[in-house]
Amino acid sequence: MKRIVFLILILQFDAKAQINDSIFIRNIYNEALSSGQAYENLRGLCKDVGARLSGSAEAQMAIEWSKRKLESYSFDKVYLQEIKVPHWERGTKESGWLRSKNGTLTKISLLALGGSIGTNGILSGEIVEFQHLDDLKKAKRGQVEGKIVFLNQAMDEQQIVTFKAYGGCYAIRGEGAIEAAKLGAKAVVIRSIGMPIDNHPHTGSMRYSEEIDKIPAAAISTQDAEHLAKMLQNGKVEFILEMDCRSFPDAVSYNVIAEITGSTNSNEYITFGGHLDSWDTGEGAHDDGAGVIHCMEALRILKTMHYKPKHTLRLVLFMNEENGNMGGKTYAQWAKDRGEIQIAALESDRGGFSPRGFNCDGSTEQVKLLESLAFHFKPYELHIFEKGYGGVDIGPLKETYPGIPLFGFVPDSQRYFDFHHAPSDVFENVNKRELELGCAANCAMIYLLDKNL
Amino acid sequence: MKRIVFLILILQFDAKAQINDSIFIRNIYNEALSSGQAYENLRGLCKDVGARLSGSAEAQMAIEWSKRKLESYSFDKVYLQEIKVPHWERGTKESGWLRSKNGTLTKISLLALGGSIGTNGILSGEIVEFQHLDDLKKAKRGQVEGKIVFLNQAMDEQQIVTFKAYGGCYAIRGEGAIEAAKLGAKAVVIRSIGMPIDNHPHTGSMRYSEEIDKIPAAAISTQDAEHLAKMLQNGKVEFILEMDCRSFPDAVSYNVIAEITGSTNSNEYITFGGHLDSWDTGEGAHDDGAGVIHCMEALRILKTMHYKPKHTLRLVLFMNEENGNMGGKTYAQWAKDRGEIQIAALESDRGGFSPRGFNCDGSTEQVKLLESLAFHFKPYELHIFEKGYGGVDIGPLKETYPGIPLFGFVPDSQRYFDFHHAPSDVFENVNKRELELGCAANCAMIYLLDKNL
Repeated sequence: MKRIVFLILILQFDAKAQINDSIFIRNIYNEALSSGQAYENLRGLCKDVGARLSGSAEAQMAIEWSKRKLESYSFDKVYLQEIKVPHWERGTKESGWLRSKNGTLTKISLLALGGSIGTNGILSGEIVEFQHLDDLKKAKRGQVEGKIVFLNQAMDEQQIVTFKAYGGCYAIRGEGAIEAAKLGAKAVVIRSIGMPIDNHPHTGSMRYSEEIDKIPAAAISTQDAEHLAKMLQNGKVEFILEMDCRSFPDAVSYNVIAEITGSTNSNEYITFGGHLDSWDTGEGAHDDGAGVIHCMEALRILKTMHYKPKHTLRLVLFMNEENGNMGGKTYAQWAKDRGEIQIAALESDRGGFSPRGFNCDGSTEQVKLLESLAFHFKPYELHIFEKGYGGVDIGPLKETYPGIPLFGFVPDSQRYFDFHHAPSDVFENVNKRELELGCAANCAMIYLLDKNL
Repeated sequence: MKRIVFLILILQFDAKAQINDSIFIRNIYNEALSSGQAYENLRGLCKDVGARLSGSAEAQMAIEWSKRKLESYSFDKVYLQEIKVPHWERGTKESGWLRSKNGTLTKISLLALGGSIGTNGILSGEIVEFQHLDDLKKAKRGQVEGKIVFLNQAMDEQQIVTFKAYGGCYAIRGEGAIEAAKLGAKAVVIRSIGMPIDNHPHTGSMRYSEEIDKIPAAAISTQDAEHLAKMLQNGKVEFILEMDCRSFPDAVSYNVIAEITGSTNSNEYITFGGHLDSWDTGEGAHDDGAGVIHCMEALRILKTMHYKPKHTLRLVLFMNEENGNMGGKTYAQWAKDRGEIQIAALESDRGGFSPRGFNCDGSTEQVKLLESLAFHFKPYELHIFEKGYGGVDIGPLKETYPGIPLFGFVPDSQRYFDFHHAPSDVFENVNKRELELGCAANCAMIYLLDKNL
């Protein structure tokens, strides 16, 4: 009988705790939707700062802008963490033309891939097209030598989750220059990794190998890629380009950090954030302005609601996710060196779209914990709570803290690759409500992780 | 032992049927995403036809455009169903000004509400503001008489499903003129029922009562509504407006219908569709160009896949949902008069956004059927399968066919009221993939209803 009474008391306690959680989360949403600062903050980051590639003046302004903003919220700590970042600049010359077999010139817009060398004046050569990187790998040297390789792989539109289609194409950008140079190509041009057929290129990082000659690498729009493929059906095409992009010595930069100190377990950290840097085209609104704002706003809301976390909640605005991940790598090592206990990390880096759920990169038990939290989000129409990817910035924590669960925020993915690394990734293409709902979802998840870990 | 063998056979049959369904639905999605005609058809409806209010030349062009398009798909039947529709025109004069107490004039954009009378020249009067229709209902005649009523109720941004916020505001538009006229107001001006603070008005239908004087009714943008409310805090404001909108005698119009005849139960109909008419501002892209295209494309895909339905699949592009629902009403009566058996109806009229699921307006058993179909949609990230609203056009079928289940397609609702009944409801604001995924989801649901009913 005593045990039954005890059990009833526990159940009542549980039920009451759930009701409290439910009210708390509803208040998070109300704050985000009715008194939110997310949209105005994203406007500031996009318009008052702008695109912010690592090592640029804009990146430094983003650091100063966000530090100042975080300081205005009276968190327990706000500070910078010094890191070294690659420094690459697009330069001022970036032009491309197609010349058909009858000599007609067509100017096309292109974007150098991040990290590419320049062309050192005008570079031209016959275009040779490959549908997939594997086709290039299988090609004979004679097919490629002295020519410009055109990698025309389209994103697979039949993938429902667009990130899977991105994963299928990523190699043409990352490894195209290495594989083309192996066979003696002069340069490589890729079809932009964007989902729609549109007329602006999408940039992104590329790699060189120490053993292979470096050749220039650029992206053309999906529309121009389709056009070029058609031209090639009618005969040889010459590609002419000039780019004066180049790399500079590594630069000093910073992660921007803010904390609310844990009330009972202050040396146990929940790290969460997005990346402050962006590509140098557009405004980095979805990638990853939205993630930065999601996480800033999450901490602001918890502070506004006078929430006293058990663990220390640490917001990290990572620098250099796009071309080196030095922010994420440095942070993971630094935390370990300080003897911190990192119990979970969360990242938002998939855009500011309508929230659908969270992934967990972790053990079966950790994924089960995530699944057990799903019901809290049902009123807010989140439904994806499953094993999956965390994020690039928090990834290195897996190495310094084996066994740590990493959580990735999952918004709707359908529109992401309309904007990714492109001039269209601007503030106007982020919807206010979708952004605010993302803030609330991330805030609620951080709250629940703090309570349940 | 025999019974066990029998049971195993049934289970195997079931498992095989499920695999077949799964493959069939995957092929629906592949067709929609890789060979879809939805986006180009929506472009045609929005750009080659345009906004298409009942009774207008554009509405007639939409009828001709869609009949021709449906005929090109070689369905078993394509025909028009004659209906009578209200005919209201906005006219050419539509201007508004605010005059502050010190005489400063500010021009503001306004849209007459659909069905409003004109002002018969310039009309002006002191503005009196009410936050809610209930406040107006409780007001004394002396507060309102001879003035212009300003109903400044904002959509409740804390509602997660934006349609609930719409439901909470709808009465200021529908009944504002009646309630204001009861107390002797000269005109009524409402805050647009739109979610964001933006600078274009949202129109929509309003009603008069036979017993109450008719007064002009217009909407101003949410931005202007906020501005006007602030002005009123500093003193009296005069509102000046001119509108020459007016109603004409009812016009002849048409529902556009296409069918694939049922292979075994041809007198049993599954009706599905959206509404072909739209408001006369913007292009009716989300409302309800998207729904029209979802359903046209669904039938095209089933035809392309050589699907032989059990029941007759009937696509109805309803005319006049926006201001009278004469298409829906006429259709429901006509079907009954012909002795047809209507076994289910489905409507898409909530925009062309990323699909989230389906509602069922039906019995507990019918809702259970819907829930039992949910697993088919999990790979496509649909998750809302629950009791809810069907749609305006198919609503009258409930009267002529009591007990019929009505299904409503549920896309993400967050952006809908950015565009609803506004100049911003244009083709450019519909995302290709989101539209195509909606086509596939509706097509799959029609297929599953045909198989499971």
